[in-house]
Amino acid sequence: MGASWKKGIAEFIGTFVLVLFGCGSAATAGGNLGNLGIAFAFGLSIVALAYVIGPISGCHINPAVSFAFWIKRKLSSKDFFVYVISQLAGALAGAGILYAIIDSTGSAVTNLGANGYGEGYGIGISLLLALVVEVILTFVFVFTILGVTSDEGNSRVAGLIIGLTLAFVHILGISLTGTSVNPARSLAPALLLGDTALSQVWVFIVAPLVGAGLAALTFKSLKR
Amino acid sequence: MGASWKKGIAEFIGTFVLVLFGCGSAATAGGNLGNLGIAFAFGLSIVALAYVIGPISGCHINPAVSFAFWIKRKLSSKDFFVYVISQLAGALAGAGILYAIIDSTGSAVTNLGANGYGEGYGIGISLLLALVVEVILTFVFVFTILGVTSDEGNSRVAGLIIGLTLAFVHILGISLTGTSVNPARSLAPALLLGDTALSQVWVFIVAPLVGAGLAALTFKSLKR
Amino acid sequence: MGASWKKGIAEFIGTFVLVLFGCGSAATAGGNLGNLGIAFAFGLSIVALAYVIGPISGCHINPAVSFAFWIKRKLSSKDFFVYVISQLAGALAGAGILYAIIDSTGSAVTNLGANGYGEGYGIGISLLLALVVEVILTFVFVFTILGVTSDEGNSRVAGLIIGLTLAFVHILGISLTGTSVNPARSLAPALLLGDTALSQVWVFIVAPLVGAGLAALTFKSLKR
Amino acid sequence: MGASWKKGIAEFIGTFVLVLFGCGSAATAGGNLGNLGIAFAFGLSIVALAYVIGPISGCHINPAVSFAFWIKRKLSSKDFFVYVISQLAGALAGAGILYAIIDSTGSAVTNLGANGYGEGYGIGISLLLALVVEVILTFVFVFTILGVTSDEGNSRVAGLIIGLTLAFVHILGISLTGTSVNPARSLAPALLLGDTALSQVWVFIVAPLVGAGLAALTFKSLKR
Repeated sequence: MGASWKKGIAEFIGTFVLVLFGCGSAATAGGNLGNLGIAFAFGLSIVALAYVIGPISGCHINPAVSFAFWIKRKLSSKDFFVYVISQLAGALAGAGILYAIIDSTGSAVTNLGANGYGEGYGIGISLLLALVVEVILTFVFVFTILGVTSDEGNSRVAGLIIGLTLAFVHILGISLTGTSVNPARSLAPALLLGDTALSQVWVFIVAPLVGAGLAALTFKSLKR
Repeated sequence: MGASWKKGIAEFIGTFVLVLFGCGSAATAGGNLGNLGIAFAFGLSIVALAYVIGPISGCHINPAVSFAFWIKRKLSSKDFFVYVISQLAGALAGAGILYAIIDSTGSAVTNLGANGYGEGYGIGISLLLALVVEVILTFVFVFTILGVTSDEGNSRVAGLIIGLTLAFVHILGISLTGTSVNPARSLAPALLLGDTALSQVWVFIVAPLVGAGLAALTFKSLKR
Repeated sequence: MGASWKKGIAEFIGTFVLVLFGCGSAATAGGNLGNLGIAFAFGLSIVALAYVIGPISGCHINPAVSFAFWIKRKLSSKDFFVYVISQLAGALAGAGILYAIIDSTGSAVTNLGANGYGEGYGIGISLLLALVVEVILTFVFVFTILGVTSDEGNSRVAGLIIGLTLAFVHILGISLTGTSVNPARSLAPALLLGDTALSQVWVFIVAPLVGAGLAALTFKSLKR
Repeated sequence: MGASWKKGIAEFIGTFVLVLFGCGSAATAGGNLGNLGIAFAFGLSIVALAYVIGPISGCHINPAVSFAFWIKRKLSSKDFFVYVISQLAGALAGAGILYAIIDSTGSAVTNLGANGYGEGYGIGISLLLALVVEVILTFVFVFTILGVTSDEGNSRVAGLIIGLTLAFVHILGISLTGTSVNPARSLAPALLLGDTALSQVWVFIVAPLVGAGLAALTFKSLKR
């Protein structure tokens, strides 16, 4: 098995877990957990996985994160491609298992933790503000990742800090857009649900990539 | 006192605490705590105990974890036997004290934090999906343990990370199966309650062992 | 200022903060926070203070912890006396400020986060079980402290782990006895409230000392 | 770009994030999150940012913290000025984006997470006690910061501990004053809301500075 394939499998497993546990917590127990519990479900997926797949692939499990590392030339174009495909496949597998879990209860599957905005989603913010919010959320998340990982001395706490930061951006974002910051996490439930989730999903592909790009640029100028 | 006996006592204390505090929080204050609070009750048992019994026995406090280390030949067959017996005894003692606590309030003891599935338990998932869920939950938990502990440099944070990962798998799993990932934690309340809990308990013995085995195999192939 | 006086002031400040923030959170916002939030209020007092008064006095802020270190001859009899007096004074000051805060709202002061048991307190466990519960809670807390602090290598994470362990014993204990594990934390609100809190307070002085003593003995035999 | 400008930009970004995420969580999802969730929104802003802007500016993102470092002569008068201006500007930008988010839902903007006291705010404590509470909350927060950062060996965990301490002071303080401990965090929403928030805001400028000053003095005498 070549090194790229191992990385791909690691990213597949990681994104599978992120989507199944994060979106799954929101969809099956969101009312009980509250936004804080959902935030920890997403955030702790990084804490758990960073120490096992981190040494293999870096534990990006997010195309926007891989994009930032590709911009910084820390990820080759070939690996970027492998990562993104694996992340999308893992996200789809996670959303698929979540679909099967809910389906097995006999209820209709109408909630897979999809992102959204506008009337009927969260507090109902506008499209423009949804774009702004997702750019800011992703900026903060990726900016922190770049900071933590730029210093070798942080290696033992990096997974913990990055995971808590993912929880952090969910605490604010869940009632606004559901918090994407991750195109793979958004695309998978949208594809399975179709409808509004699918028609709005471009926001959660474009804005995270913009936010990640801005984070990479800002980090570079502050570090120079 | 021989080294094996010390390990046995450490595993007894640890599993006693895990079951009394984890199942006890669910049974006596589950509505107040919510699934997030229950998840932290289970997870923080590892955080607390890893730094005191970890140096003695490794703080498995879970037959599925001991099984994974036995597969990896990091635990002798004799120690595996000592560990599992001690874990079962500790779990029974913990469930017994919990029984006495609830009994002393004058209420009937109908809830000891047992695991389950199907109509009337959580959101009511099917047997098949309960098996799948427990395999996945245990896979994630044991996969992380193997990753964290494979690198000596993580020794100061390992207990924290593993504990947060146990909390993590509870956040999703509580509304599905109650989250076992641990045959001893499931068997003890089932034996004291009998009935449905006991008739379903095989799921929470078989699936965690399968999930732990898959984690050990996957970890081995990704590491090779 | 002599070293003992500095230690005394450190323990005074620490116990003041523990009681004001822990009992205060329970008394002024317990319904909003839930038991998990109250548990973190108590636990994070250690996380915050361990890194500032830890280097001065060890951040015991609890007579039962000081008792365990005195048994282990890590604390002189003179210092033990200074510590306990300072802890009691700090706890009284914390409870006093809490009294003034609630009094300033115009409400009668009936809740200062006191411990208790029996009908009308938590789920209403019996005196016998309250003793058992407090011995176990304190055993776990002090056992962990002894384990973490016995290894110099843990020094950077010790405050975090001990604080999370204090949160842990609160998650289970709040609905049972309110969780004392600390005679100073229990005595202060009981003295200001009188009545049932005061008549039951001996439980929360005796049981924590017994639990701490058992933890010291168990730790010693497992380490030998 | 000179070093002072970089520090200013770092403090601007940090305070922007603190106010948008902290005040924003309170204002848009406070009921869902509860005080514990809001406390983590504020606290995790430090955890996230300490590892990326900490190496640039120290991640004060709070005039009271900068004041304590200025008292200790760890911050020049010129930098103190740059820091405070940047913090105020960042706080205003954060509150402004929050205003736009809520405005885009079509609701009137009446809640921006402002601090307060007296009838109609939290449990309704008096002005005198609000001053006392804010002095104590800030004392604890800054005292911990001074302790953690005085020991180089803590550098890898400092951001985590300081962030958890900020969460800690919020757990108690939210129902009392909303927890300021930070003049910039209080001034920004007050300026945008006017009215009671603005007329009370002096409390949240004066008391945090007094608390920070007391922490610096106490820390100095205990360390000497």
